[in-house]
Amino acid sequence: MTLLLTGIGELTTNDDELGQLSGAALVIEGDRVVWVGPAARAPAADEHVDLAGRAVLPGWVDSHTHLVFAGDRTAEFAARMAGKPYTAGGIATTVAATRAASAEVLAAGLRRHVAEARAAGTTYVETKTGYGLTVADEVRSATLAAEQADEVTFLGAHLVPPELAADDYVDLVCGEMLTAVAPLVRWADVFCETGAFDEDQSRAVLLAARAHGLGLRVHGNQLGPGPGVRLAVELGAASVDHCTHLTPSDVDALASSDTVATLLPACDLSTRAPLPDARALLDAGATVALASNCNPGSSYTTSMSFCVATAVLQMRMTVPEAIRAATWAGARALRREQEVGILRPGSRADLHILDAPSATHLAYRPGVPLTHSVYHQGERVR
Amino acid sequence: MTLLLTGIGELTTNDDELGQLSGAALVIEGDRVVWVGPAARAPAADEHVDLAGRAVLPGWVDSHTHLVFAGDRTAEFAARMAGKPYTAGGIATTVAATRAASAEVLAAGLRRHVAEARAAGTTYVETKTGYGLTVADEVRSATLAAEQADEVTFLGAHLVPPELAADDYVDLVCGEMLTAVAPLVRWADVFCETGAFDEDQSRAVLLAARAHGLGLRVHGNQLGPGPGVRLAVELGAASVDHCTHLTPSDVDALASSDTVATLLPACDLSTRAPLPDARALLDAGATVALASNCNPGSSYTTSMSFCVATAVLQMRMTVPEAIRAATWAGARALRREQEVGILRPGSRADLHILDAPSATHLAYRPGVPLTHSVYHQGERVR
Repeated sequence: MTLLLTGIGELTTNDDELGQLSGAALVIEGDRVVWVGPAARAPAADEHVDLAGRAVLPGWVDSHTHLVFAGDRTAEFAARMAGKPYTAGGIATTVAATRAASAEVLAAGLRRHVAEARAAGTTYVETKTGYGLTVADEVRSATLAAEQADEVTFLGAHLVPPELAADDYVDLVCGEMLTAVAPLVRWADVFCETGAFDEDQSRAVLLAARAHGLGLRVHGNQLGPGPGVRLAVELGAASVDHCTHLTPSDVDALASSDTVATLLPACDLSTRAPLPDARALLDAGATVALASNCNPGSSYTTSMSFCVATAVLQMRMTVPEAIRAATWAGARALRREQEVGILRPGSRADLHILDAPSATHLAYRPGVPLTHSVYHQGERVR
Repeated sequence: MTLLLTGIGELTTNDDELGQLSGAALVIEGDRVVWVGPAARAPAADEHVDLAGRAVLPGWVDSHTHLVFAGDRTAEFAARMAGKPYTAGGIATTVAATRAASAEVLAAGLRRHVAEARAAGTTYVETKTGYGLTVADEVRSATLAAEQADEVTFLGAHLVPPELAADDYVDLVCGEMLTAVAPLVRWADVFCETGAFDEDQSRAVLLAARAHGLGLRVHGNQLGPGPGVRLAVELGAASVDHCTHLTPSDVDALASSDTVATLLPACDLSTRAPLPDARALLDAGATVALASNCNPGSSYTTSMSFCVATAVLQMRMTVPEAIRAATWAGARALRREQEVGILRPGSRADLHILDAPSATHLAYRPGVPLTHSVYHQGERVR
């Protein structure tokens, strides 16, 4: 079965050769894009949809979420908005609720949030463990995540749980926990931050994960300057996420590495932190991704459109830079940029179609729900 | 026909006696609310809807929009996001397009934007003329606006059109134009700003409008400090809008007046201006409203939820302050607070029902479309 889409007002492909097209057409076969080009030269297809001038871009690639959780932190959020500061400690609230929840409750929440994201144009989602923090709870979280997310990251090193001393917990993460969880996941991550794990502990976790064959990711430089970015680059992590507080040498290190700087502006806003200096990173030549960091504590949104609008309106990213950061660079942060976050023959048919003639409208019309339709692996899901 | 709503997770009434209720019920008859109270004491009704714990608040009152326009300013927006500064001059682009458009095109755009706003919870809308700037075009704009908006404001003094000298245009506005438009509108407004109208010109327009029996509104202190706020308070305007650049004496003047300070954060973000100091205004005792300022140049959004989220996340307004600013205070800025922006027996049955247990989620979940359903004058419109 082939499907021909015509009447595309503006097509963002993220492909270096195809670039951005107007008046283009695109053909899907099964779960793949099989043809992209001028409408006048489009091949015949079994079905045909005229998009009437709507813009098409690759579905959002949300490369950083924490969707395996239970419980509610509305009150903590409201208190923060009335002046209480954010610290890493609030994670423990969600750990307690997640441990206490049934697998069915966790799966239902995960399903609800993935569906919410997909309805708003997100077609590829990474999610993490990290609210279990026992061997059994982390295995359970990884198993549930693998059923519904595209990529799963082991984040046993999210916080030291209240029942253990820090060094004992790091030993557990690097030993029995990694052995149990590694077969279920592709990535490992560590929250390298004051109040979570210091540089030595973070390095130990990452090296152990690498020894288990996992790719590396780091939460770094969120609450203040720190060793996270340096460590991520040193160990060749695919991505270092947050990057709210960077020194010039952090920026240089990222620019001369293959480590993606993943910015999480909804988290910065939700914790009343400054927004990261995307301009410095881009001007230095670093690869910048945008992700939602959806979690119930510090960033309870699945809206990549909100992140893109914020990046353009408030972080001095241009519209094309922000769109690319939320699609191609998200995929790059997951080392999937050959296949997702890009529209060209052979890529996954993940399409985000807007009720607007150009992707610029995502920032020009902040807060207006512009998602017209979404194709996920070739299937229309909205 | 009466309709009983039960299962309200959190009910924001904006009524001093009723306050915020949980586990409440509400009865609608025709276009009015006729009963509010504990579900256990609710009267019988013809129909019954269980809201299953959803939050209910008054529909948004958007007290500042410019919806009678034609043309597109996407390219100007994109250029601004790439570094070009915003000036009042861009308005002329929309004036030319609006003059050239047919009444049908203008009415269709107005209808589309009002419908978009309503689908996102806005149930009371003010809109302005100001892209016509000839007697005939301003009359046409006011006539079209009155067909679809709840309140219409004459903004002939938006910009001096290219074909006239400033003083000649002010004479036209104060004379023939006001005479022609005044019977069609309730309010008059002036853009008191560098590049638009100075203090003397603004005062002349406002005094002439008052002599025609119109209520007064002012665009002031948007692009820099200026006389707008002072003039609005001096003349007893119902509202002064923007307030991006205020001196301490402006804040004091607002606090000791009946003039509402209407903040337009989506406009500040879309022009890369600083956000206004809502905290100073609230702490001094001024009445603060939030509005979208929807227009194709400086703020092309109808999303009051986006404005509320921005106010909470970035302007240090608490959630209750921001919700009240976008409902009750918007109505107060239009001198309609007895009837709209409030839910109590006798008020208009304008309800915004959220897919969330509390209004806090509007800021806790930025960018997520949380509008579950909307009742406009008692009729479900979404």
